[in-house]
Amino acid sequence: MYLNELYKEPKKYLGKEITIKGWIRSQRKQKDFGFIDFSDGTCFKHIQVIYDNTLSNYNEVDSFRFGSAIEVEGLFIESQGQGQDYELKANTIKLLGDVTEDYPLQPKGRPTREFLRDIAYLRPRTNLFQAVFRIRSIAAHAIHTYFQDNGYIYVHTPLLTTADCEGSDQMFKVTTLDMDNLPIEDGKCNYKEDLFGKKTYITGSGQLHGETFAMAFNKIYTFGPTFRTEKSNTKTHANEFWMIEPEIAFCDINDLMNIEEDMLKFIVKYVLDKCPDEINFLNNFVDNTLKEKLEKLVSSKFNRVTHKEAIDILNNANIKWEFTPSYEEDIAKEHEKYLTEYFNGPVFVYNWPKDIKAWYMKLNEDGKTVAAVDLEVPGAGELMGGSQRETDIELLRNRCKELGVDTEPIEWFLNLRRFGGCYHSGFGMGFERLLIYLTGIDNIRDVIPFPRTPGSCEY
Amino acid sequence: MYLNELYKEPKKYLGKEITIKGWIRSQRKQKDFGFIDFSDGTCFKHIQVIYDNTLSNYNEVDSFRFGSAIEVEGLFIESQGQGQDYELKANTIKLLGDVTEDYPLQPKGRPTREFLRDIAYLRPRTNLFQAVFRIRSIAAHAIHTYFQDNGYIYVHTPLLTTADCEGSDQMFKVTTLDMDNLPIEDGKCNYKEDLFGKKTYITGSGQLHGETFAMAFNKIYTFGPTFRTEKSNTKTHANEFWMIEPEIAFCDINDLMNIEEDMLKFIVKYVLDKCPDEINFLNNFVDNTLKEKLEKLVSSKFNRVTHKEAIDILNNANIKWEFTPSYEEDIAKEHEKYLTEYFNGPVFVYNWPKDIKAWYMKLNEDGKTVAAVDLEVPGAGELMGGSQRETDIELLRNRCKELGVDTEPIEWFLNLRRFGGCYHSGFGMGFERLLIYLTGIDNIRDVIPFPRTPGSCEY
Repeated sequence: MYLNELYKEPKKYLGKEITIKGWIRSQRKQKDFGFIDFSDGTCFKHIQVIYDNTLSNYNEVDSFRFGSAIEVEGLFIESQGQGQDYELKANTIKLLGDVTEDYPLQPKGRPTREFLRDIAYLRPRTNLFQAVFRIRSIAAHAIHTYFQDNGYIYVHTPLLTTADCEGSDQMFKVTTLDMDNLPIEDGKCNYKEDLFGKKTYITGSGQLHGETFAMAFNKIYTFGPTFRTEKSNTKTHANEFWMIEPEIAFCDINDLMNIEEDMLKFIVKYVLDKCPDEINFLNNFVDNTLKEKLEKLVSSKFNRVTHKEAIDILNNANIKWEFTPSYEEDIAKEHEKYLTEYFNGPVFVYNWPKDIKAWYMKLNEDGKTVAAVDLEVPGAGELMGGSQRETDIELLRNRCKELGVDTEPIEWFLNLRRFGGCYHSGFGMGFERLLIYLTGIDNIRDVIPFPRTPGSCEY
Repeated sequence: MYLNELYKEPKKYLGKEITIKGWIRSQRKQKDFGFIDFSDGTCFKHIQVIYDNTLSNYNEVDSFRFGSAIEVEGLFIESQGQGQDYELKANTIKLLGDVTEDYPLQPKGRPTREFLRDIAYLRPRTNLFQAVFRIRSIAAHAIHTYFQDNGYIYVHTPLLTTADCEGSDQMFKVTTLDMDNLPIEDGKCNYKEDLFGKKTYITGSGQLHGETFAMAFNKIYTFGPTFRTEKSNTKTHANEFWMIEPEIAFCDINDLMNIEEDMLKFIVKYVLDKCPDEINFLNNFVDNTLKEKLEKLVSSKFNRVTHKEAIDILNNANIKWEFTPSYEEDIAKEHEKYLTEYFNGPVFVYNWPKDIKAWYMKLNEDGKTVAAVDLEVPGAGELMGGSQRETDIELLRNRCKELGVDTEPIEWFLNLRRFGGCYHSGFGMGFERLLIYLTGIDNIRDVIPFPRTPGSCEY
């Protein structure tokens, strides 16, 4: 049986013979008996297996190595010792998978995260990454559950695209051509011979496609891998990550903030409910403010300020900023940090100067700002970015012209404004940003199973 | 409010004033009154809006076009007419989004699926694609729910990879280099200047990475987009599709068949429960055996035969095969079809000749077959393919050598066999194959929001 089943109703199994299969996480040996710290990976909790020299293969078991796969059959009892409520008194212990001596993980000491990153294929076996990657899985399901329970349709928007309107500098090119021997025509690559007959990219957003479905299903979301070619080696950038992009018809920027707030509280509460052991572990070993921060968020009311109000707050602060706050400009990391501290919690900043925001955002009546909103959260900075969308096709065309966006490949998208279009809004949330917030882990490389960053595409 | 909320408890809203926002799906006008068939996209059901010349903008409403976005405020009542239980007696109807005259969808007639494929960004508004894409969303959630409820960890395996062990012919190459001006060294592309400093691909499977997590979390699954470069223009091939790949520790091929059967029944039951209107529609207009087929599956026991037994059955059939059944070879489409008819339901075919199966599958004791299993289902052919995995590292190395698989980039994977490895199994299920089975739609292009096929990467 599985440990997650066992720990769901431990009393039901007390005094019963059970069989479990999993791995030795540590081992202590005395003269005539021994203890195995056993995990089967189905929950954060381990179980203590005790065995003694009545085992037929006692000497063999005594020599089992750390990390070995074993099968234990025994009696599930209340523990006699301290540190655990239950234990398993083994009748038989079988070796299922041995470990060679060069196993990089060792029972003693605490390996650094940098070391573990180099053995990304083994690190899920450590307590830290058992916690992180279980939370990753549970948080993903929280997201699906939130949207499905609220009537959203999950849309698999395409990753391959021939439209480079989002800025092809940020997109990977994709080809089936032999790159060591490209077909050349007039000195340039002849894409007609490529699989799709055109220059093809991996897209960095599903928003445009998502909008087509919102105009049919009302409320939709995407959740899938996303790619950026940024050559930036920071703690918060990866070239492959996952993103959630909801898009909602008949929704203005205030409705959007309500949805973002409601969703985030749901996710945090879900993770607190389903992963108490993991959160406690991270609170003890990674960030001792984590649990309080998450619990507080669930019951708090998020603050809402305009970009202008935010700049006023920054200007009134008695701080010498590295970057001077400006009504016309983006806010810097130091500003984000100050704002979440000032409000002592998450804060929406909305109505941003149009020149620093994307072409598809709704122009406000002032003619200067757009109905964009960023959510800043303590510890992770900008967690979500969204906007009410521009629905006036002429304003959209003007913005595209101003910003040099070629409208030819997105005429279908612009058509949505002519064919029963309505006011609507959407946002994007980087899944790893959320995980950084949920786990207290500060490096994106440690919340992605196999991270891809410039110069690094291992495993 | 939303129609899905309204239809959850219609009696609660009877006699109440409600406001809804959505689209005109059709319209009938009489002299002094009219009917609007209204949908807001949140459920398959529409609502009939009735209005009369007491509306202040009666003449305007009368001229609203098919497809327009409107807001209706009115009284929710039991319908006086036939064809629906309830209707909305409008007090006000506001136009939110107009439709220009060149709108490709028209109220009359039934457009062909080929025509709709060309306007993929509008087809979600039709009844057929409302049904198909809602089932796609619900089925995706059924999959997550099944695995999460059963203690599996959802793993986001990477798509970008520098290991070409799966056969680089089948994989897209990915680059940030300027393909019109590649850096050349010794007559070949110099990948050192590329983002990752190496030749990079999009992988076609998450299995190898999934196994590393199964050796830590016991039961895991992946669910994400997958890419193949196949230049084949058939009804069942696309270059971008979604795949589910579970991997389970301490699981042999019989356990695996149990899991596949249990999962499929769960998904089908979930969709039948959540999408009765959609299934009825597809049963009426696409495949009138659909509903019976799905209901039967939930309560049936799947058959299990070895590849050898399957060939015997085919040889004993009084049929002149196009492809002669053979103990050494794969089974053809015509054989798959016959087998599902012979067993009148899904059938597992297991223990396949090793020479036609992949290098990582467990060699059986006969030395000739591997512990592979395919599930064949009526109407969709092979729905899942899986195997118990080879855990003997020397046998694995031999198979790689025989098949010319370079082991250098997958030494980490082979290491799993030395570091507490255990017997384990996994399978892959193409999500679109499942949807073809669930909807009765026979062309993969019609179950993918924006399909990508050779020569076609539109929108």
